[in-house]
Amino acid sequence: MERVVIFDVLGTLFSLDAVRAKLSDIGAPPATLEAWFERTLHGALTLTTVREFRPFREVARAALQTTLAQFGLEVSRTEDILAGLSEVEAHDDAAPALDRLTEERIRVVALTNSGAQQTEDVLKQANLLERFERVFSVSDVGAYKPDRRPYEHVINELSVAASEATLIAAHAWDVVGARAAGLDSIWVDRLERRWPLPVAEPRRAASLVDAVGMLIG
Amino acid sequence: MERVVIFDVLGTLFSLDAVRAKLSDIGAPPATLEAWFERTLHGALTLTTVREFRPFREVARAALQTTLAQFGLEVSRTEDILAGLSEVEAHDDAAPALDRLTEERIRVVALTNSGAQQTEDVLKQANLLERFERVFSVSDVGAYKPDRRPYEHVINELSVAASEATLIAAHAWDVVGARAAGLDSIWVDRLERRWPLPVAEPRRAASLVDAVGMLIG
Repeated sequence: MERVVIFDVLGTLFSLDAVRAKLSDIGAPPATLEAWFERTLHGALTLTTVREFRPFREVARAALQTTLAQFGLEVSRTEDILAGLSEVEAHDDAAPALDRLTEERIRVVALTNSGAQQTEDVLKQANLLERFERVFSVSDVGAYKPDRRPYEHVINELSVAASEATLIAAHAWDVVGARAAGLDSIWVDRLERRWPLPVAEPRRAASLVDAVGMLIG
Repeated sequence: MERVVIFDVLGTLFSLDAVRAKLSDIGAPPATLEAWFERTLHGALTLTTVREFRPFREVARAALQTTLAQFGLEVSRTEDILAGLSEVEAHDDAAPALDRLTEERIRVVALTNSGAQQTEDVLKQANLLERFERVFSVSDVGAYKPDRRPYEHVINELSVAASEATLIAAHAWDVVGARAAGLDSIWVDRLERRWPLPVAEPRRAASLVDAVGMLIG
């Protein structure tokens, strides 16, 4: 059986610590990053629910302005903080995990809720872009994960069956979406630590390398 | 034309400050409430997206455990903090706004993402329950707002046209959902302060009394 590995990008391959530092610089309490990011994700999925679409950067910008205003922080710093999304660093084990898949000749792609160009830029910056056969963005289909359309688009474009594809993500909602679309999936637990949804927990791994190890034994 | 006013409950009629205080007591940074609540909302909508349903309290519990674990807080305090959702206090202007609608003989109902029983309990505790013709919960239809089904269920049950119903909510996602279902809506801006979504801003009001004033002039 052929196997394709689909990686989520922000939070999974890349740490958001660079953005957290920028928020901290303007006096934001530690949980501000999560408040903003969760609002962004919920806003994006709200648009998909009402069958509208706007680029991730626009959703993130509007959510950030609200989050800053809510905590009495400087809304004028929005663009600077947003730019942090282009300065994120890859987790240390991203390259080794990808290399291991390449060795085994397993196809590797990325599927991001963010924009395709921004994602290719951060992957390039981290010297990871050439490890991916393709980078897919939800903008290809105009619907955010965990809607089933982005996952289906990837497997259709790659001409594989859903069961031949494994999503690796550090976000429960992404894993649940992939599962609902019939894909195999592994949850990397280092970001959320505890399974955050009241539905069955999937296979979990402590790191990207461990997740890849589960696939190739 | 008949008019029905539909109120969102948590955050709109009730402040979440009681919950924020409980989080603060265990050393949580100020934005922890928003990090948890946004994660809860996104988790709930994720379930709706994959056509599953779990009660709000369960979604909130799982999201809270993750949020506490992420910030190195005591996960063992989960039930205590969760109980805070039953101890929320009504905003000062909730009763005056509801009274004004009663005077005008405008029908008033509630539509909550939370459970029906829990919502009736907090409304009763605040002496507001008798002001509502009915309390609707998304559990009636097994889909969370902003999916269109909860809004459609309300107008169908009340035998009114979508255009005869006005949702009043302090959450942009709720207003956007109601609008997509054809309802009139007013966004109360005191919780989010800046319109947090990159789609057209609706009518906005600074308070519940102001929102009601927009309807009855």
